[in-house]
Amino acid sequence: MSFKEKLHQATNRNNSLVCVGLDTDPAKLPACVQDKDNPVLYFNQQIIDATADLVCCYKPNFAFYGALGAHGFTTLQQTMAHVPDPIPVLVDAKVGDIGNTAEQYARKFFDVLGADALTVTPYMGTDAVTPFTAYQDCTTFLVCLTSNPGADDFEKQPMGDRPLYEHVIAKAHEWNTDDNIGLVIGGTQPEHFASVRALAPDMPFLIPGIGAQGGDIETAVKNGQDEQGAGILLNSSRGILYASSGEDFAEAARTATLELRDAINEHRNV
Amino acid sequence: MSFKEKLHQATNRNNSLVCVGLDTDPAKLPACVQDKDNPVLYFNQQIIDATADLVCCYKPNFAFYGALGAHGFTTLQQTMAHVPDPIPVLVDAKVGDIGNTAEQYARKFFDVLGADALTVTPYMGTDAVTPFTAYQDCTTFLVCLTSNPGADDFEKQPMGDRPLYEHVIAKAHEWNTDDNIGLVIGGTQPEHFASVRALAPDMPFLIPGIGAQGGDIETAVKNGQDEQGAGILLNSSRGILYASSGEDFAEAARTATLELRDAINEHRNV
Repeated sequence: MSFKEKLHQATNRNNSLVCVGLDTDPAKLPACVQDKDNPVLYFNQQIIDATADLVCCYKPNFAFYGALGAHGFTTLQQTMAHVPDPIPVLVDAKVGDIGNTAEQYARKFFDVLGADALTVTPYMGTDAVTPFTAYQDCTTFLVCLTSNPGADDFEKQPMGDRPLYEHVIAKAHEWNTDDNIGLVIGGTQPEHFASVRALAPDMPFLIPGIGAQGGDIETAVKNGQDEQGAGILLNSSRGILYASSGEDFAEAARTATLELRDAINEHRNV
Repeated sequence: MSFKEKLHQATNRNNSLVCVGLDTDPAKLPACVQDKDNPVLYFNQQIIDATADLVCCYKPNFAFYGALGAHGFTTLQQTMAHVPDPIPVLVDAKVGDIGNTAEQYARKFFDVLGADALTVTPYMGTDAVTPFTAYQDCTTFLVCLTSNPGADDFEKQPMGDRPLYEHVIAKAHEWNTDDNIGLVIGGTQPEHFASVRALAPDMPFLIPGIGAQGGDIETAVKNGQDEQGAGILLNSSRGILYASSGEDFAEAARTATLELRDAINEHRNV
């Protein structure tokens, strides 16, 4: 099943636009999981079990697994195997390379890991993107307008008559012949959601920065959703994973997810 | 020892500006290594043994190891452990992420893998770069002007009075307080070497695209070298790794490296 179809099914079944970011940091795990054979895997499995009926997607950030070495890659594979159908998995790796190197990355994330979607950095242009979009059933989310202060350095700088990130959107349309491109739009940029949605009415947006980074949920949902009241994946990582550092961490994660889901749904046009 | 010091020593000892790209593709290995326990590792060790007195750096591209899963990470660690001092290892991963995620990547590549230098994509701005430059002894090579056709899409587009990649160079100077930033400048962009060197007289340039991608060695060296006749790492991967598909693959790699080294040295101001 394609990413889009999985996302559609999971969104409807769970009535949710919440994406849980599995950015699991071994240093931040509750004491009660530290004695498990693989604390990160056990923790992830508990989080998934507690939230799988409340989310539309899971998003592991590859950096957190890569930092653990070879063992991390296996842990990520095992985590992804634990996600029940039809919930899709979007791997956040922000890769950006060309030609046969990009093909290697696409193979790694889509074939070896089995990701349904991937984040890709578009700086190097067409031949850094098309090796990923060639996987028609997978969705490639282009890093477009991010939620960090550094977005001012290049992304928002004017390039001719519009900022660089709008050029990325224009190129995204050119590359979107298989209708499998999405955009990463930072949650702390709410003033831009309406204009970005107008430029890309049908593309899914991955919106990080809700929660720990302090994005404005109401504005993001009202201005970011598509005509069907969907098309946005609102990601929260730390706010859910570390909602409690006690033995109730999974219950607390569930409560935090439920609250976020409902806060989002208040503003959906459905 | 810092990357810069290692590079300086290796360049002088081996009288070389050649960087060998260890982009080892299991599908392209000679038949004679296929029966080894770990064909990629064995092949890399043979290549390193045959070229270590002729190069200034090795550059494994992380994609080729990531595509092999957990086993690939271990293979890369073992490959890097085989590189003799003082030759530095530059890991080409083109990572680009922010805050605590960037810190995870920095930890992965500099601490866990032990890379001396790393390629980083600057699209997301300051907070996507400074977590890497905080490792003072390591050098961060910013993806700046690349050798692929897609460089026309964004990198070379005018942003105000100069192209985007020149803004990256201007920011690189701001971020270079510890004198540990380099630039990735594609070897198929020889007409730009003189202007980029004028803008960054003292930064090392990683120049991919020599060899398989057909860059012009003479122009790259004449216009790219710094005042000491160094400051450029001319990378060749496929032209060296796959110089022969027979049992003489390592000898052929040595011959190809020697020829490239001497072709480069013809044009150095030393």
